[in-house]
Formats: sequence, C-alpha cells, structure tokens
Amino acid sequence: MELKPYLRRPHFYETDGMNIVWHGNYIHWMEEARTEFMDQIGFPYSRAVEAGIDFAVTDVSCKYRAMTRFGDTVAITVSIRHLSPAKLELGYAMRDASTGELKAEGSSGHFFYDRGKGRPVALKKALPEVYGLLQSLL
Amino acid sequence: MELKPYLRRPHFYETDGMNIVWHGNYIHWMEEARTEFMDQIGFPYSRAVEAGIDFAVTDVSCKYRAMTRFGDTVAITVSIRHLSPAKLELGYAMRDASTGELKAEGSSGHFFYDRGKGRPVALKKALPEVYGLLQSLL
Amino acid sequence: MELKPYLRRPHFYETDGMNIVWHGNYIHWMEEARTEFMDQIGFPYSRAVEAGIDFAVTDVSCKYRAMTRFGDTVAITVSIRHLSPAKLELGYAMRDASTGELKAEGSSGHFFYDRGKGRPVALKKALPEVYGLLQSLL
Amino acid sequence: MELKPYLRRPHFYETDGMNIVWHGNYIHWMEEARTEFMDQIGFPYSRAVEAGIDFAVTDVSCKYRAMTRFGDTVAITVSIRHLSPAKLELGYAMRDASTGELKAEGSSGHFFYDRGKGRPVALKKALPEVYGLLQSLL
Repeated sequence: MELKPYLRRPHFYETDGMNIVWHGNYIHWMEEARTEFMDQIGFPYSRAVEAGIDFAVTDVSCKYRAMTRFGDTVAITVSIRHLSPAKLELGYAMRDASTGELKAEGSSGHFFYDRGKGRPVALKKALPEVYGLLQSLL
Repeated sequence: MELKPYLRRPHFYETDGMNIVWHGNYIHWMEEARTEFMDQIGFPYSRAVEAGIDFAVTDVSCKYRAMTRFGDTVAITVSIRHLSPAKLELGYAMRDASTGELKAEGSSGHFFYDRGKGRPVALKKALPEVYGLLQSLL
Repeated sequence: MELKPYLRRPHFYETDGMNIVWHGNYIHWMEEARTEFMDQIGFPYSRAVEAGIDFAVTDVSCKYRAMTRFGDTVAITVSIRHLSPAKLELGYAMRDASTGELKAEGSSGHFFYDRGKGRPVALKKALPEVYGLLQSLL
Repeated sequence: MELKPYLRRPHFYETDGMNIVWHGNYIHWMEEARTEFMDQIGFPYSRAVEAGIDFAVTDVSCKYRAMTRFGDTVAITVSIRHLSPAKLELGYAMRDASTGELKAEGSSGHFFYDRGKGRPVALKKALPEVYGLLQSLL
C-alpha cells in the first residue's frame, strides 16, 4: 500500500509571539496525521471509537529541526516503528512540502483501551482487522 | 455574596504572530472564569458534571477593547444577565488587573443537558440548589 | 466569483468531555474559513501579513444550532455582511457537509492594522486590491 | 532556593472525547510550569522576552503514567537536568496534588535566540544573571 503524506497548512492561531508555529502544535499535527493514516489504510479512527476501542497515548516526543511559519505547507509522513499485540509505536517526519526541508521528527506510543470493559486490551484481539492492516505495513 | 474576579495571566502559547493574545483564547478564559464563579458560589462545576448535568453553550460573543500581552494580568468578573428555569445568560468583563483598563467584554448563553436522559432539562428541577444560588445573585 | 465552502473535519483533540466539539473551537474554524476565503478571492492572507497589514478582530460571535462530533465534516460558507473603508464584518454559516444541517452561525468584525505604523489604517488605502476584491463580492 | 511546585487545575476545554485531559495539553502545562519557575527564581520570562532573548525549544517529550480528569489538581515540579552556556534541559514531574500519584513525566530542551541579531546566542553571555541563577540550582 502506497501512503500519501498528510498535507497541513499552519493556521494563524497556531503561531506564537515569536511569529512561528508554537512548538506544542506539532503534537496536534501528529494526531491529525495519525487520523489520516488510519483513513488511508482503510480503517477510519472514528470506526475504532465506535467500536469502543481508544488508541490511548503512552508517550510522545518531538524534535524541532526548523521553524514553521504561517504560509508554509507541511507534509507529514507516518511510519510504524514497532507493533506488538498490545502496543504500537509510530514515527512522524514533518517536511516542508515545497523544499523537502525537515521541520520536525516525532513519535507516539499507544496502547488500546476498551471503554466498555474499562481496561487495556490487545489490539490483535479487539480489532484484528486493524492489527492485520498495521502488520501488513511493517 | 461578594465574588472575587478571576485573575488570569496569559500564557506564552496564547499569543499569536501579532505578539498579542489570540482573540479566540478569550472564549477559553470565559469558561475558566465560569468554572471559578461556580466554585465561589459553592457548587463546583465538577459536581454538576458528576450529577450528569452539563451546562451546554447556546451562544458566545466577545468584543475586544484593548490588546492583551504576555506579562499582563487580566481580572475577569462574571455577572448573571438573565436566569430562567431553563436558560442562563452570563456576562464577562475582562480588565487589566493593574490599571483597570477594559480589555474585552463577553457573554455566554446556556441550557442544561441531562446526560443520562439525553435531553435538555430545567436547571430548577435538575439542580435546584444551583438554581437557588444563581437566583440569589441576581 | 463562485466561492466554495471551506470543508473541515473536526480533530479528535477538538472534542471535549461531552464527546462533542468544544464550543470555542468554532472560533478557530472561522479564522480558517476566513483564510481560505482570502485564498479563493485571490489575495492570500499571508500576503497581507507580508505587507504588514493585520486583519485585527474587533468582535466575534457564534450561535450553536447542533452538536458536531468527531467523524463529521463541516462545510463553512463565508459572506461579507458589511464593508466600509475601515471596517469589515463577515458572517459564517457552518453546515453538516452531508446533510446540510445547520451546526452554527458566526460573525467576526475586523479593522486593519499597519504594523509598521503601529496604528489602524483604511483597507481602501493600505491594500486597495483587497478592498476592490471584497467590494466586488458584496 | 526552595521552589514550590506549579499547581494547575485542568480546564474543561482541555478534556477530550475520552473525558480525560487530552495528552497534548501536558506540553502546554510544561510551558506554564517553566514560566512559573522563571518567576520563582527571580527572572520572569517576560523580562527575557523584553531583552529580546527567546528560550527556543529544541525538543519535548512526555510519558503518561495516569489519566488526569477535570476536577483534579496537578502539582508540577521543574528540575534542571542539564545546563551548558548554550543549552538547557528541563525535567517535569506532574503529580496529583492530593495523592502524589505520578501523572506524567516530561522534558524540554532549549537554546537561546537573540531576536535582534536573528541568531542563537549563549545564555551565559546574553543573560548572565539568568545563567547564574540556573547554575545555582544545579
């Protein structure tokens, strides 16, 4: 499966008093890119929510390489760094869509939480279709 | 009952590329001031949430009078503009805490939503204690 | 000129503890729709920023008609309610992109601020091209 | 110098559709705690901004240990993990203010950017007073 990067234009309200995108907003973009990624692999995140399975976040990180400004367009590529029945780790490369310049690199760790049961579950059991889709991308 | 204004220092991440507080953040502050207001009248908003009653928002407005910057402190006064068994309208005066300069004036309209029943309810019936407290402030 | 509505899918991080889009986020969407509107009329907002002219906000309002959820798509139409050399008032109709259901109606008022001069200016003088474009849409 | 933790009550608008604080908001809290930390050591961040020196962010990370809900109070302790003339690394421990339960652990890396010169500078040279204060806390 060929995945397309998520294209994102910074909003004016995402800039800060230094006139660049405030650093915390990249964490928002990672969630958006993750949502788009799920859409592209054919299992929209909203379907997981409907099934009562949340992709809970265990950790996030972001390294900033270059400033992003209002007027830029950022292309975000999501990759699967690690997958086990109960855990998922994603990587994010954020590049200027025109020049390819690396803006930031991020990661997010996830486990799967069953709202009905009120406890963590193995994705492999809870949503085997998604688990298979993710595995096929490794 | 003597209510104290809610004091709020803008966060750096609330500034925008014009190096002032981004206008939408005042709507956030109004919610914070509303929460503080409920604390002060003796019925924390978290208790309403626990009771399954949400203060749903029907409308908001804000008029901007002067720019607010990182380093300022804003004092927000909440007033009850209108109360009926099923509706509440609040007003917000946001002033510089040092100079008293008016920064912004806002309003919010509310109805009350019972999560368990999945429908609007009269506050007077659902949470008579809160209704009484609000009425005593009119 | 035929303008297309701005299509926006709510992000998960825009939902709140009531599992609907938090009301303040509609103010963010209005700014995004305004930016898209400027793009469509042929004068990207980033060009105004480069020219040192900010579209400062004097007031905003939003009336909520129906809840918006993660998984929905909202179509936002921007209209010019009033234009004078020094002031602009925009209206926003936010509808479910599939059903046409009205989700919210908003407004924003603007004046024009010259960063270099540090004071308000008439748009008609500062950016006559934009003023003409806006006038042609009335 | 005895530093007090930064106490923060989550805002309702910081909760998400899972009815817990959305994970990205902890990055906001870290900035707030950093600002408070600077206040406490006697050099408010706004003074650095006035001096034209920004604490630019090179990286952030956060590990989530327990969910935070509306109604909780979080106590955030800032520590200096590393300091060199040109770089600063801070750590953040976020605990439930009542029970002491660890909610999250974060980190942020910083360099110092001179707005006037438009380039990074050594804090030791640009703001020796701050550098000395930070060093005394190691």
